[in-house]
Amino acid sequence: MEERIVLDEGRFLADLEELGGIGAAPGEGRTRLALSDEDGEARRWLVRRMEELGLEIRVDGIGNLFGILPGEEGTEAPVTAGSHLDTVIRAGALDGAYGVLGALAVLRGVRESGTRLRRALAVAAFTNEEGVRFQPDMMGSLVLSGRLPLEEALAARDREGLRAGEELERLGFRGTDRVTPGAYLELHIEQGPRLEDAGARIGVVEGIQGIAWWGCTYRGQANHAGTTPMDRRRDAFAGVADLSRSLRELAARVPSSVATLGRVEVRPGAINVVPGRVDFTVDVRAEAPESFGRLKEEVPRLLREAAGRHALELEAEALADAPPVRFPREMTDLVDSCARGETDRVLRLASGAGHDAQFLHFLCPTAMIFVPSRGGLSHCPEEHTEAADLLRGVRVLARGLIALAQREA
Amino acid sequence: MEERIVLDEGRFLADLEELGGIGAAPGEGRTRLALSDEDGEARRWLVRRMEELGLEIRVDGIGNLFGILPGEEGTEAPVTAGSHLDTVIRAGALDGAYGVLGALAVLRGVRESGTRLRRALAVAAFTNEEGVRFQPDMMGSLVLSGRLPLEEALAARDREGLRAGEELERLGFRGTDRVTPGAYLELHIEQGPRLEDAGARIGVVEGIQGIAWWGCTYRGQANHAGTTPMDRRRDAFAGVADLSRSLRELAARVPSSVATLGRVEVRPGAINVVPGRVDFTVDVRAEAPESFGRLKEEVPRLLREAAGRHALELEAEALADAPPVRFPREMTDLVDSCARGETDRVLRLASGAGHDAQFLHFLCPTAMIFVPSRGGLSHCPEEHTEAADLLRGVRVLARGLIALAQREA
Repeated sequence: MEERIVLDEGRFLADLEELGGIGAAPGEGRTRLALSDEDGEARRWLVRRMEELGLEIRVDGIGNLFGILPGEEGTEAPVTAGSHLDTVIRAGALDGAYGVLGALAVLRGVRESGTRLRRALAVAAFTNEEGVRFQPDMMGSLVLSGRLPLEEALAARDREGLRAGEELERLGFRGTDRVTPGAYLELHIEQGPRLEDAGARIGVVEGIQGIAWWGCTYRGQANHAGTTPMDRRRDAFAGVADLSRSLRELAARVPSSVATLGRVEVRPGAINVVPGRVDFTVDVRAEAPESFGRLKEEVPRLLREAAGRHALELEAEALADAPPVRFPREMTDLVDSCARGETDRVLRLASGAGHDAQFLHFLCPTAMIFVPSRGGLSHCPEEHTEAADLLRGVRVLARGLIALAQREA
Repeated sequence: MEERIVLDEGRFLADLEELGGIGAAPGEGRTRLALSDEDGEARRWLVRRMEELGLEIRVDGIGNLFGILPGEEGTEAPVTAGSHLDTVIRAGALDGAYGVLGALAVLRGVRESGTRLRRALAVAAFTNEEGVRFQPDMMGSLVLSGRLPLEEALAARDREGLRAGEELERLGFRGTDRVTPGAYLELHIEQGPRLEDAGARIGVVEGIQGIAWWGCTYRGQANHAGTTPMDRRRDAFAGVADLSRSLRELAARVPSSVATLGRVEVRPGAINVVPGRVDFTVDVRAEAPESFGRLKEEVPRLLREAAGRHALELEAEALADAPPVRFPREMTDLVDSCARGETDRVLRLASGAGHDAQFLHFLCPTAMIFVPSRGGLSHCPEEHTEAADLLRGVRVLARGLIALAQREA
């Protein structure tokens, strides 16, 4: 019953290199912000690849791009794999691109092997996963899953005031199609060190951590650094410093959680002035719903406590609140058995990063496949995965997609 | 033997308001960074005021600006009073400007009263006292006192890479004169809460705290905030946060000391990225020489300890190192008796802030006069001193300058 296909590994690696060149600068990685000229170039490149394979191309209202290979039962509810073409600033070549091109390689293998499958297959590239230029991140999958109104997404503005909708129009990727995947698999680099630490080659992703973000301001009193006694200060930076420590203690108390102060802007920012104001962000994540709940409960308390210790005024706004996602057992078991067809070194883990899969999950049976990231690094030019690992991941994806496409819908 | 002059109080207060308008923005105080366009405008404004009074104008190699009122014995070794025109970012109207305009008011009073004094009087505005744009601070008085080579000061670069010397040239304030004060009095707002707390109207400044500054960088590894476990991070911000706490503990251990992290710049500064680099400054001060020595010994150790705890690379450069200063007894006694001619509510104290007086002290007999700062606030738009206190300070300065100018040189 198991269908075998031949993957053109050389072609897959060449595609990865070619796409990685779009938006690249020497020593600077590549930058393809969502709906930029570089994103447009990457989209047109992918459309040409899809056309070469004879895929049916669909573009929806938020610019999600699909290439469909019909099955015996037609093109409805395709078994879909993909990820995104947009990147952060100075990115590696793999985040997003790997999942899209891995899916493309599988569809190419199926077509060129002449394999006939019951259900349609599709490769998907979702719009603006990174959220660097337009917020929110994972915009394309949010709209597709009905969790963000299309109009709201199109109205998002970048820092120059340009609207996502206008940029989509300009690039020619504001479509009118509607594609609803019947199942979804996303192949991705881990972007963390757990597979490498465990010596595992494939990660079976059981779910995605819950993520909560706050944008905050501490206001104290800017004052002279020489004349203001320590016990008379309302030092906004001392407040954030104490918060940093209490957030790290919180992450140590709550199992499998992380806490980060990523953006910290100190004002007035002069060598001899006690900081009167700090604008900062808090990012906390946890895998288990009860842990995530504890984080969301404790962070506001810690924000208030540090403010109180330094007589600061606090403003805090919740910027994101995505609860933990757990993929269905039958999907993770399927990925696990596909992985074990390729290697014994399999680790089940949760994703620390957000992915389009976390919203596809609300639409259809979904799971993810991870391959190791060297040094756990991502979102930087040093991002790297060995070719053998990349190819193994694509083979696991192929097994998974074929298995799903042979089932009854 | 005591000469009396009439001070034009209205003119003095109007001058203070006019100068305070240069570089001002509504709700933002004023910003006249050293050698900026705004500093240039303030300098040209002061030159016009000096010219109106018929003062002899001198500009030295680092741009210190003098207006001299000759005495019976000529213009040599003038009895000098002044301060600085440059400000921090979003400053009040008094820090620096008060001392310059107070001196100008006294010279105007002497001139308009037709009072004849033995020695010359001078009003001085020293270049770059604040040190916000170019380091070190108190640059003009450092060069004048021979404690900083002129070439080194001119070569200082701001963050855009512009050199102080080039900016001086551009503004037309790179002079060739040489003025050596015969005595120096500096009138200044306290910038701290001690006069207000004691209910005193005039402060007799016995000395100035020692000040040491460092410019530092912590380098760790920027990485994904969701996928990087807490124990695998090299979080440069966590290092600075821990340093903040250990510096505050240091200040609690060392008598009459303060410690401040004033400038803190976190990179890359994204909500979902562990900070890989922080550039920051450390400012520590103490009154007693032994306390100051302890601070200078301990800060480098604390910098290394926090770096070590978070596996960070440390770069640290000493930006300033001014030991504690004690003004001569005969000068503080003179100020004390002048003050008691105006009020009984006199407090003797040390200055927590650095002032040009601490380097003039190495050149000639020097002392300082303080007036109260409301709430101890300074280096912020809320900086304020009641007009009655400002005028009382100018009268004390007038008594002091006249007494000194009647003595033999």
